Amino acid sequence: MDLKKKIRNVPDFPRQGIGFKDITTLIGDAAALRSAVRQMRARFAGISVDKIAGIESRGFIFAAILAYTYQVGMIPVRKPGKLPYSTINEDYDLEYGSGSLQIHSDAVQKGERILIVDDLLATGGTVAASARLIERLGGIVVGCCFLVELDFLNAREKLGNYRIESLVHYKSE
Amino acid sequence: MDLKKKIRNVPDFPRQGIGFKDITTLIGDAAALRSAVRQMRARFAGISVDKIAGIESRGFIFAAILAYTYQVGMIPVRKPGKLPYSTINEDYDLEYGSGSLQIHSDAVQKGERILIVDDLLATGGTVAASARLIERLGGIVVGCCFLVELDFLNAREKLGNYRIESLVHYKSE
Repeated sequence: MDLKKKIRNVPDFPRQGIGFKDITTLIGDAAALRSAVRQMRARFAGISVDKIAGIESRGFIFAAILAYTYQVGMIPVRKPGKLPYSTINEDYDLEYGSGSLQIHSDAVQKGERILIVDDLLATGGTVAASARLIERLGGIVVGCCFLVELDFLNAREKLGNYRIESLVHYKSE
Repeated sequence: MDLKKKIRNVPDFPRQGIGFKDITTLIGDAAALRSAVRQMRARFAGISVDKIAGIESRGFIFAAILAYTYQVGMIPVRKPGKLPYSTINEDYDLEYGSGSLQIHSDAVQKGERILIVDDLLATGGTVAASARLIERLGGIVVGCCFLVELDFLNAREKLGNYRIESLVHYKSE
């Protein structure tokens, strides 16, 4: 299935000049949702995974389904103030200013193999921060999986040698 | 499986005197996550469902897995400003002030049977708002499914005749 056809382009969101890739049309379509999950699994075939980390909040959608199909647990990577227990924190740069992400300090056990999942790979700042959080706890990032990648933002330069798989690519804005 | 044992109680979060029910320990446990999904399915056995609505953002986790296992689409119910396309809005009361939830105005087709999913049923304000959103678009709410219910907040009084199923109950704070 050509998943790109299931994604809606919304012009000028969240601000003028940005074409937003709206994945709600894809996840609202049963066949497209299943096809996306199947394709994600295929991209990481043969790689053993102990846990799936999902980045708040659309990342939770595919991370949860993948955790279920892999029969592993899911780790939420969240914005500050959302996780109730002891956390660790990593900052990342935004276009103006910076943001932070957190995980529970007991979310990853040493040596666990973690697949990071989000809906969209843009500049890569949140993914790189998520990878640092996992590695600080002794986890091994076995890959980063996305539904959509905005190739023109060159996130891969920021993500070094991690295995990155995205199902749908946009070459230009 | 006794799911309650997989939920961590975090005292004084988000503020003093509140015992927060931390479900990250449950979703991080592969067997508990699968058991929860199986139990949710069992509670709605025999009821036909066209789509699953998940309430931002922990609600996305179980809504996504249920959509996958039911082989239907998932609808995100989100805080204002997050959904890029045309939306409708419903307000709900908070302890101090009010909040709002939105769905895309084309997310539900007339007559579609929708199961609403969230991690926690507290006062029921967000669920009632979600049900109103779905019904304004002509959808039929076939039930509301939660991992945890805080019985002492009496949400069921607010939710009228909807079928409500929660896997884990807390009788007192």
